Amino acid sequence: MPKLWNETIEAHRRAVRDATLDTTAALVAKHGLLSVTMARIAEETGIGRATLYKYFPDVEAILVAWHERQVTGHLEHLIAIRDRGGTPGERLKAVLEAYAFVSHEHHGTELAARLHRGEHVAQAQQQLSRLVSDLLAEGARIGDIRDDVAPDELATYCLHALAAASSLPSNAAVRRLVAVTLAGLRPPRASRR
Amino acid sequence: MPKLWNETIEAHRRAVRDATLDTTAALVAKHGLLSVTMARIAEETGIGRATLYKYFPDVEAILVAWHERQVTGHLEHLIAIRDRGGTPGERLKAVLEAYAFVSHEHHGTELAARLHRGEHVAQAQQQLSRLVSDLLAEGARIGDIRDDVAPDELATYCLHALAAASSLPSNAAVRRLVAVTLAGLRPPRASRR
Repeated sequence: MPKLWNETIEAHRRAVRDATLDTTAALVAKHGLLSVTMARIAEETGIGRATLYKYFPDVEAILVAWHERQVTGHLEHLIAIRDRGGTPGERLKAVLEAYAFVSHEHHGTELAARLHRGEHVAQAQQQLSRLVSDLLAEGARIGDIRDDVAPDELATYCLHALAAASSLPSNAAVRRLVAVTLAGLRPPRASRR
Repeated sequence: MPKLWNETIEAHRRAVRDATLDTTAALVAKHGLLSVTMARIAEETGIGRATLYKYFPDVEAILVAWHERQVTGHLEHLIAIRDRGGTPGERLKAVLEAYAFVSHEHHGTELAARLHRGEHVAQAQQQLSRLVSDLLAEGARIGDIRDDVAPDELATYCLHALAAASSLPSNAAVRRLVAVTLAGLRPPRASRR
């Protein structure tokens, strides 16, 4: 049964890969980037060093792969939230809040800054901008969102504003940031125009 | 007249330093960071290489000094705008717009990202946050700015949102970003609470 055999091989490879990513991320979080070596990762995972090198050339490559997996996971999470249903306003708020919490929990470190220069991040940012921009366009059509500024510009505003979550001290502060950011998106008051 | 002599020396040193910063910045902007060497800078400025090395150990140090001068200049510019007078609302808008244009004109490059990791940037960011936070507190006292979120949190929101200006295509788009960001700062409408 070659098909089953291939599937088993594939599942095994994925398991080795996932274990390597998880272990490396945990080691870096605990001991810092500079003290984590391939030998240490091999030891912790129980994978032989020679095998480990067949999967990844160095620690940096493992971290990039780990970060790609994180970014993909976050994007899938945001897409799932978007697809959960509710009014366009509710879905927009839920997606922006989830994004703000991702920024709050995962960023603001030197390692994050390094990993964020990768190509996979630029692609994910584009997908995210598109996702938010589509929600904003939907909101603008029903009069929930201002239509005097294009949805893609509003998306740029949103994502930058919400990145402030990485430097906020509490979940309550993150929720206030989302409320303030959303307030910027509403149709201008007639008296203010 | 030792005092005059000292002043002359000091003025000369400042002139050499300024010429070095200007020339290096121009060379890097034109040819890219990697193709600019100390020899090239010495040649362009007409300062001897030995003299140049008495001022700066390497190109990186010159760029950091240049960036410090830029950051200080931008901060002084924003302070001057704040002090120009007008209502608190007008001054806040003028400062935020000026900051957005600084982001729009000077940032979004690889070099900017590198230089922004410096200590002097962190200090300037703190001063800027304080400046904006004080204006927001003043606006909140007279009911122009929402008071349900602390001024320092609102300042964090503002500065992150306006950093989006670095990726906007036009001055008109920057002005729209400022308008959207300001809208987030207004007291919430009663009907929306």
